[in-house]
Amino acid sequence: MLRSTARTTDTQSGLTMSAEIDFAVPESVEIYDTTLRDGSQQEGISLTVDDKLRVAEALDGLGVKYIEGGWPGANPKDIEFFHRAPREIRFGNATLVAFGSTMRPGGDVNSDDTLRNMLDANTEAVCMVAKSWDYHVKEALRTTLDEALRMAEESVRYLVERDRRVFFDAEHFFDGYKNNPQFAMAVLRAAQNGGASTLVLCDTNGGSLPFEVERIVREVKSSFPTQIGVHFHNDSGCATANALTSVGLGATHVQGCINGYGERTGNTDLSVAIPNLTLKMGIETIPREKIAIITSVSRHLAEVINIATDPQKPYVGTSSFTHKAGLHVSAIARRKDAYEHIAPELVGNGTRFVVSEMAGRSTVAIKASELGIDLTKEQIATVLEHLKTLEHQGFHFETADGSMELLLRRATGWNQNFFEVESFRVIDDFRDNSEQLTEATVKLWANGERLIATGEGNGPVNALDGALRRALTPLYSGLNSIHLTDFKVRVLDSSSGTGAKVRVLIDSSDEVGSWTTIGVSPNVIDASWQALVDSIVIGLLRTQQG
Amino acid sequence: MLRSTARTTDTQSGLTMSAEIDFAVPESVEIYDTTLRDGSQQEGISLTVDDKLRVAEALDGLGVKYIEGGWPGANPKDIEFFHRAPREIRFGNATLVAFGSTMRPGGDVNSDDTLRNMLDANTEAVCMVAKSWDYHVKEALRTTLDEALRMAEESVRYLVERDRRVFFDAEHFFDGYKNNPQFAMAVLRAAQNGGASTLVLCDTNGGSLPFEVERIVREVKSSFPTQIGVHFHNDSGCATANALTSVGLGATHVQGCINGYGERTGNTDLSVAIPNLTLKMGIETIPREKIAIITSVSRHLAEVINIATDPQKPYVGTSSFTHKAGLHVSAIARRKDAYEHIAPELVGNGTRFVVSEMAGRSTVAIKASELGIDLTKEQIATVLEHLKTLEHQGFHFETADGSMELLLRRATGWNQNFFEVESFRVIDDFRDNSEQLTEATVKLWANGERLIATGEGNGPVNALDGALRRALTPLYSGLNSIHLTDFKVRVLDSSSGTGAKVRVLIDSSDEVGSWTTIGVSPNVIDASWQALVDSIVIGLLRTQQG
Repeated sequence: MLRSTARTTDTQSGLTMSAEIDFAVPESVEIYDTTLRDGSQQEGISLTVDDKLRVAEALDGLGVKYIEGGWPGANPKDIEFFHRAPREIRFGNATLVAFGSTMRPGGDVNSDDTLRNMLDANTEAVCMVAKSWDYHVKEALRTTLDEALRMAEESVRYLVERDRRVFFDAEHFFDGYKNNPQFAMAVLRAAQNGGASTLVLCDTNGGSLPFEVERIVREVKSSFPTQIGVHFHNDSGCATANALTSVGLGATHVQGCINGYGERTGNTDLSVAIPNLTLKMGIETIPREKIAIITSVSRHLAEVINIATDPQKPYVGTSSFTHKAGLHVSAIARRKDAYEHIAPELVGNGTRFVVSEMAGRSTVAIKASELGIDLTKEQIATVLEHLKTLEHQGFHFETADGSMELLLRRATGWNQNFFEVESFRVIDDFRDNSEQLTEATVKLWANGERLIATGEGNGPVNALDGALRRALTPLYSGLNSIHLTDFKVRVLDSSSGTGAKVRVLIDSSDEVGSWTTIGVSPNVIDASWQALVDSIVIGLLRTQQG
Repeated sequence: MLRSTARTTDTQSGLTMSAEIDFAVPESVEIYDTTLRDGSQQEGISLTVDDKLRVAEALDGLGVKYIEGGWPGANPKDIEFFHRAPREIRFGNATLVAFGSTMRPGGDVNSDDTLRNMLDANTEAVCMVAKSWDYHVKEALRTTLDEALRMAEESVRYLVERDRRVFFDAEHFFDGYKNNPQFAMAVLRAAQNGGASTLVLCDTNGGSLPFEVERIVREVKSSFPTQIGVHFHNDSGCATANALTSVGLGATHVQGCINGYGERTGNTDLSVAIPNLTLKMGIETIPREKIAIITSVSRHLAEVINIATDPQKPYVGTSSFTHKAGLHVSAIARRKDAYEHIAPELVGNGTRFVVSEMAGRSTVAIKASELGIDLTKEQIATVLEHLKTLEHQGFHFETADGSMELLLRRATGWNQNFFEVESFRVIDDFRDNSEQLTEATVKLWANGERLIATGEGNGPVNALDGALRRALTPLYSGLNSIHLTDFKVRVLDSSSGTGAKVRVLIDSSDEVGSWTTIGVSPNVIDASWQALVDSIVIGLLRTQQG
């Protein structure tokens, strides 16, 4: 083992610190994303081939070095993906990898379907999984340890001889090493003998802790000249730390997923590991200029994959640089770097201040002045009081910046005079489970005129939106440039069953920007209506100002 | 430093492994939960005093040693909490802790409001925060380093002399140490001189990585005889690992929150740290028999606090022991311990198999046989095909076990004959933003009779549920024991705005168990109706079988 120096950059002060640590820290690390194979095994994820192509394109745009595209043969989708990806995507940085297992026990490389499928995927590189825990060889493969070694070595050699770069994925390596280190090491040796380019140590069950990983990676690194990679699952909540520890000991290939997708608790979250490696350990990962798009890539993938991302996710979460408590907010207004571990712009995220009932006067004052609204001390106190009451009813202004703006404006005595609502009605009619009619009628007053309009839609909210626009567009043509871009429903206190309160959030945008509005009611239609009306009012205000 | 042995228990094999590591692993660690103070600063959390009391009660039931109740004086709620908690909760294990800062710069302990408020909270223990990063002393406190040391020492001594156990929370300790180790250490010395029982090293900005923590905790531990505690934020995704590393070096007091609540990316997640410390490192934390309720406490707190918990959370998440991929499912049916890092029952969680389009035949077969449904090979193939189509439309059977059961039963040619739907209609009428009427009418056929009933409700789904029950209860009295317990709405592909598809999940229960059903449609009322009808059919089937 080399003894070298771990570099840490204190991003606050700009100082670079050194510490003598028994780490052989590499200059650079290959980033390998397995969202399209291991990541897709997450509960709730179900990707079409088109989705997979969009994911691959985004990952390539981020600059990861390898994209594992799937398991050809296990799944018709994955075969189609490997066929279409090189034709439809112009890859800039990434190499596609096909995943598969070794040949079967007692098999022959020349007639093994899995190996054939891996070759047919026609990729430069393949990732071959093999069992390195003796327990699995006996119980799952039901063969001998010697046969497992033969399967690994011959399968690797077969693909290497056909010009594939082979990543050797030693499944259950850490559990295997704990149980039978001789066998686990013999499996790596077999792969090395077969010509594998990289020995990837996989903590398949995700149970290993950093001090175990440190001991085992150190042992492997000192026994093999071949490149070492790691693949951690997060079942002990230590996947990121385990990856960093391994890199600190000389591993130069890290597998994981942007957003940490994966079965059970997921894989190493690359959107966390990459900034840690690059910004804190000074190791090259993706191209340096791409670090600043990692937040937007993380969010884009979450949309394509259609899994809401944890707002608390380090670096890329919507809350990761959000300040709420009164004390901090007034301090941070003076010195941002005192309360943020990195400048959020480095990863394309940003500082946010949120207003809630916990807010002090300073938070409300900052928010109002951001919007150019002048509030007296008394008005600020009134806003805080009102905020408290509404939040108690289930409103949440932290995300609903549009409705928050209206609340602040109303505190000055302002009221919207674009239109007044007299009544609205929604009728949903279903016959024989097939025919269906949804219509909404709104009655409004605007400019002294009574406006009545009816809209149809594929649901009550859609119909109401249509009716509202039909009534108002003749007066306010600016409405044509306002679009509803997102619509979210959350049931509050859902244990009251169908009588529970519902919170609706609507995101809207015009040519310049976007805003979010909120409604709360036991009636989903009523809650949607509140958010719709706020959305339109903010939109009209912006038209007026613009 | 003592050189001792880290214990790890391989829960698969039951073997206990030893490794010579430079760790002074303690026998036991104090668990300190700060959900009610630091945790509440999370975006989206807003607790009433009643909520806080429920949280404290649950934490005490779990057996944590210290519960930080709030910051008396910063907030009228927190004063009320400290008044009511000892009167309304009979604490079994836990000691309440009041939080506060040192006195002000230039202040006098005898006339300082913060210290007075901490005393008035009337707790045995207090947690006193002080700045240990010179940058903060200069920029936020705007005083000298010497004055900061005086503030710390005198404030601690003042409370110690009034019989409080003082946890000294060295804010920004790790950043402070990196920037000016002499000052950071001097702050700890001041607290020790003042009589603090515990020096809590706080990574307030959460940016530290395990190798930095290792170096700094080692330094502190070898310089101070006083008990060392740690408080990590998760901004680098390493809070859990940092806490484990610190304990491995001799820290015996760990602060954090069950579910990892907290500002930005949250605090050390105690629902992950506790099982790691206890089950994997063999260290006493909460009473051993309480480990098995940690999943239910985690979920109960999520409900009280009303923040959906990440299903991927290690140990306690709903997906943490969920198996989906076809390959694993058939193997795990033989050997559970081959694919789980611990027996999930140890933490009160459980193994789940989910069925999705990725499932192989074996998953469907296992699910059917669990339900006592016999399916032929052809029927299994048909189910898989149908599953694929429906999941493509936005259905998700992984969670909807009730609707999944109906799908499997229908594959045998079965059809429910409890009732047939002719039509239903919902009318929502709103006037002047106040008066509101929601009514639903259903027309059904059952036992050759035509049934027409109308229900009113506070929303369309509630009204439909009422109408359906009114029509059917005269024929099926068993419906009286079936309750809807939960109702969730998710917008799919929300970027289509109000025209997006909506997925509704309804949880129902009878006296024996519970089930979940699903509906998908662009119309929230239609989606709810599908889930409602499935819920009632499953309920009636259960009545028939029971």
